[in-house]
Amino acid sequence: MSEEGKADGKLLRLREIDREYRLLGHTAAILHWDQETCMPEGAVRERAEQLSLMSGLMHDRITQPEIGELLGGLGVSLDPDPRLPERFQGLDRAFLRELARAYRRNSRIPRRVVTELAKATTIGQRVWVEARKAADFSRFSGQLSVILDLVREVSSCLGYRDHTYDPLLDEYEPWMNSAELEEVFAELSAGLVRLLDRIRGSGKTVDTEFLHRSYEIEKQKAFGRSVLEALGYDFSRGRLDESAHPFTTTLGSSDVRITTRYNRRFLPAALFGTIHECGHGLYELGFDEAVRGTLLAEGASLGIHESQSRMMENLIGRSMPFWSHFYPQLKDLFPGSLEGVDLRRFYEGVNGVAPSLIRVEADEVTYNLHIMLRFDLEKQLVGGELAVEDLPDAWNEGMERLLGLVPPDDAQGVLQDIHWSGGMVGYFPTYALGNLYAAQFFDTLKRDVSDWREQIESGRFEPVLDWLKSNVHAHARVYPARELCTRITGEPLDPRFLLDYLQEKFGEIYGF
Amino acid sequence: MSEEGKADGKLLRLREIDREYRLLGHTAAILHWDQETCMPEGAVRERAEQLSLMSGLMHDRITQPEIGELLGGLGVSLDPDPRLPERFQGLDRAFLRELARAYRRNSRIPRRVVTELAKATTIGQRVWVEARKAADFSRFSGQLSVILDLVREVSSCLGYRDHTYDPLLDEYEPWMNSAELEEVFAELSAGLVRLLDRIRGSGKTVDTEFLHRSYEIEKQKAFGRSVLEALGYDFSRGRLDESAHPFTTTLGSSDVRITTRYNRRFLPAALFGTIHECGHGLYELGFDEAVRGTLLAEGASLGIHESQSRMMENLIGRSMPFWSHFYPQLKDLFPGSLEGVDLRRFYEGVNGVAPSLIRVEADEVTYNLHIMLRFDLEKQLVGGELAVEDLPDAWNEGMERLLGLVPPDDAQGVLQDIHWSGGMVGYFPTYALGNLYAAQFFDTLKRDVSDWREQIESGRFEPVLDWLKSNVHAHARVYPARELCTRITGEPLDPRFLLDYLQEKFGEIYGF
Repeated sequence: MSEEGKADGKLLRLREIDREYRLLGHTAAILHWDQETCMPEGAVRERAEQLSLMSGLMHDRITQPEIGELLGGLGVSLDPDPRLPERFQGLDRAFLRELARAYRRNSRIPRRVVTELAKATTIGQRVWVEARKAADFSRFSGQLSVILDLVREVSSCLGYRDHTYDPLLDEYEPWMNSAELEEVFAELSAGLVRLLDRIRGSGKTVDTEFLHRSYEIEKQKAFGRSVLEALGYDFSRGRLDESAHPFTTTLGSSDVRITTRYNRRFLPAALFGTIHECGHGLYELGFDEAVRGTLLAEGASLGIHESQSRMMENLIGRSMPFWSHFYPQLKDLFPGSLEGVDLRRFYEGVNGVAPSLIRVEADEVTYNLHIMLRFDLEKQLVGGELAVEDLPDAWNEGMERLLGLVPPDDAQGVLQDIHWSGGMVGYFPTYALGNLYAAQFFDTLKRDVSDWREQIESGRFEPVLDWLKSNVHAHARVYPARELCTRITGEPLDPRFLLDYLQEKFGEIYGF
Repeated sequence: MSEEGKADGKLLRLREIDREYRLLGHTAAILHWDQETCMPEGAVRERAEQLSLMSGLMHDRITQPEIGELLGGLGVSLDPDPRLPERFQGLDRAFLRELARAYRRNSRIPRRVVTELAKATTIGQRVWVEARKAADFSRFSGQLSVILDLVREVSSCLGYRDHTYDPLLDEYEPWMNSAELEEVFAELSAGLVRLLDRIRGSGKTVDTEFLHRSYEIEKQKAFGRSVLEALGYDFSRGRLDESAHPFTTTLGSSDVRITTRYNRRFLPAALFGTIHECGHGLYELGFDEAVRGTLLAEGASLGIHESQSRMMENLIGRSMPFWSHFYPQLKDLFPGSLEGVDLRRFYEGVNGVAPSLIRVEADEVTYNLHIMLRFDLEKQLVGGELAVEDLPDAWNEGMERLLGLVPPDDAQGVLQDIHWSGGMVGYFPTYALGNLYAAQFFDTLKRDVSDWREQIESGRFEPVLDWLKSNVHAHARVYPARELCTRITGEPLDPRFLLDYLQEKFGEIYGF
């Protein structure tokens, strides 16, 4: 066989291994989806065993030495920044890049650390729930220390040049590092604080009372479904269900399901939750056929993934054109609760800005400040500059500095998010990156689809959706996030796009 | 280490392998349940790949040579009727017996045959659907021949003493053979034909018109759910959903789900379908804790499994005490459609006997004749005594001889059932065995719970359910069906119990 023929054989074998790995991953996703939406309560314990078996089988596949040998045979290095022979281009090149990354990350972490982390986070999540209920951080701090020690061990197994935080961030936002992030966040933070001052200074407050009136759940469901249909969510390749926490999950190339939760006394919960998850779902459903079912069938990064949900939820779903189209329908459904609420009042109501304690309830402006606080703190925690016992004070000081609020207790402060109890350090920044990428992509979209406002006002979402599909969705994980951003917008990530968007939108609402 | 210690280690390792095998099996069951109840249509193709991967992983586990070595090391032989050392008793003995059986059956069939059969039956089912739609057996006969050749190959791989059919039957009804079955069926058949003659001779016809009136589906659902609750089906360990074909499936020791289908214009479809599946579900949920999650957590045989669904559907669900309790509730729900229908008329309506063409719609008396026809024909087919092209004629002759009806076309005759297209030869007899075991078990139950009629009339199902749980369900697959029958009833399978039950019930209805 020729050298080329041998290389083809090796690549084919790697694709086979990846295919089985993906099928196992989708199977695990089905187990998880079922657990959150359908599973009877009695099945909890055994479901954990089933999921653990699937994780084990997946870990075995992605760390099998054969992968390393085949990659080596193809001349692919296993450095953090892998070198790839020039002869591999296009999808093959991207496939080898991502496979080398996945193999390297997974095989560098010893099974002992994986197992200990799984155990520590299972305990961690239970302890966190209790501590949060009791609003007492001291009940959680011991287990958090155990988790952070293991997370630091993961970091040193993976190796880094500048900061312990970098390989952790890289898990969720590949090829990004903390120095770069700090620079972006510094500019963003300064701009947001200025903007928040102007909003406060405007003296205007927005009426949100009507959002808390009674909204029949069956009607909320019908409305949500019609919004999903208008946004092009394909029910022959997905589903909408209910779960305690909304999520999107991929059970197969043509099986991307979203969930939401309904609150009779708070209309925005299901409404914007559904639109948010729809953004994630459209991304996964829009991957090009050529990458479906392979490891390139992923978002380019969590930041890019979040850009699609945030764009749909905020830049589109909370925009005036969107509600010009949908508000009459909504008002027809809820004539009582929306009596006397005109389009403008509704628009302002779902866009009101006010510093608040809880991240997931925050508005478009203050949300990012919540993220930056978490980023600062978790970087200091894994870097050893902040002791676990000092975390609540640091949290509260940060809240006061950034938002002018001090949490009355730990439950509404440092204990509000699940992430750290699950060992997810490096995840938070991707939420803010999502907002940044969304605004930057949307800026290009607006130039390419110059009549986007008129189109959406008339209920024609295709031009915007087609743009997203061909510019973002189709590319899946073929390009790293950084490269994707430049390909789409012509320049690297820049916080001014988000700041300009927020300034324009909230300047109009608050009259400055 | 002592010999005993070594043996303990081997047994432990076998239990580990079994555990993983079961977890994979439950995972495959989740994929399948989701496919039938939730999955978006676009996901069909990839779901087949996921299921195929699971089957492959399961096959690898259950045929791994380590099992043979460990069993050999423990002195367990791999004969069709395995010899087990006396030192293993109780659950260990049953575990080794069933593991040896599963290992032997699975490892004896070469992978080539497994793969070819999977392919042939996938094609077979598609071709069968088309042939049935066209009511033309000749479109299916070629593929059926391919399937039957492979089925015969399976039989010779497994080996047999008397008849090609025996190892096939043994797949579904372990430790049973065709000679024994023929003897039982001969007596049953004679008795049923006599009974049917008397029913015909009575001159009475039963009114079933009202069953075809309009029954709102939401109300059918509510009623079905309340029946399930009364029958002790535990919704914290199960679910009721809808699917095209009703089924019961076990996704975990505490996750046994049933499905049904609703027909607005035919009340019995969902009603008795749900009660039938409930019988299967209660069996699986009632396994003793000690066997849960192991390969003993199965029905003793498909015949025993079917005994539980049939007993619930017919001996309990179509009994006068059952409807004395439930009919007032049903009538309250459907006052219009059941106007003028009193309890007696309802009871007779759901118990009417009339020869018909379609097995799944047959009454309690003629149902078994449908089965015996299929048993005769499939035995001749695999034995080479009947050519595939002669099957439709043989079918029609048999229908005329047993039921006095000739199907007007193949769709209502030889093409009505899916089983043969899926390579399931040897499955049909288990339906009749279910009826036989149900009647025989119920005869003992009536003696042990002598006030069963009064209890059920008052809506107290516990005494009957408790009896079933401790006498049947708890034992799972610990005893072979034959032994279980003797333990419960004091004697081997005997068709007179079913014949006596039918004679008494239908003699009363038809007045002889």
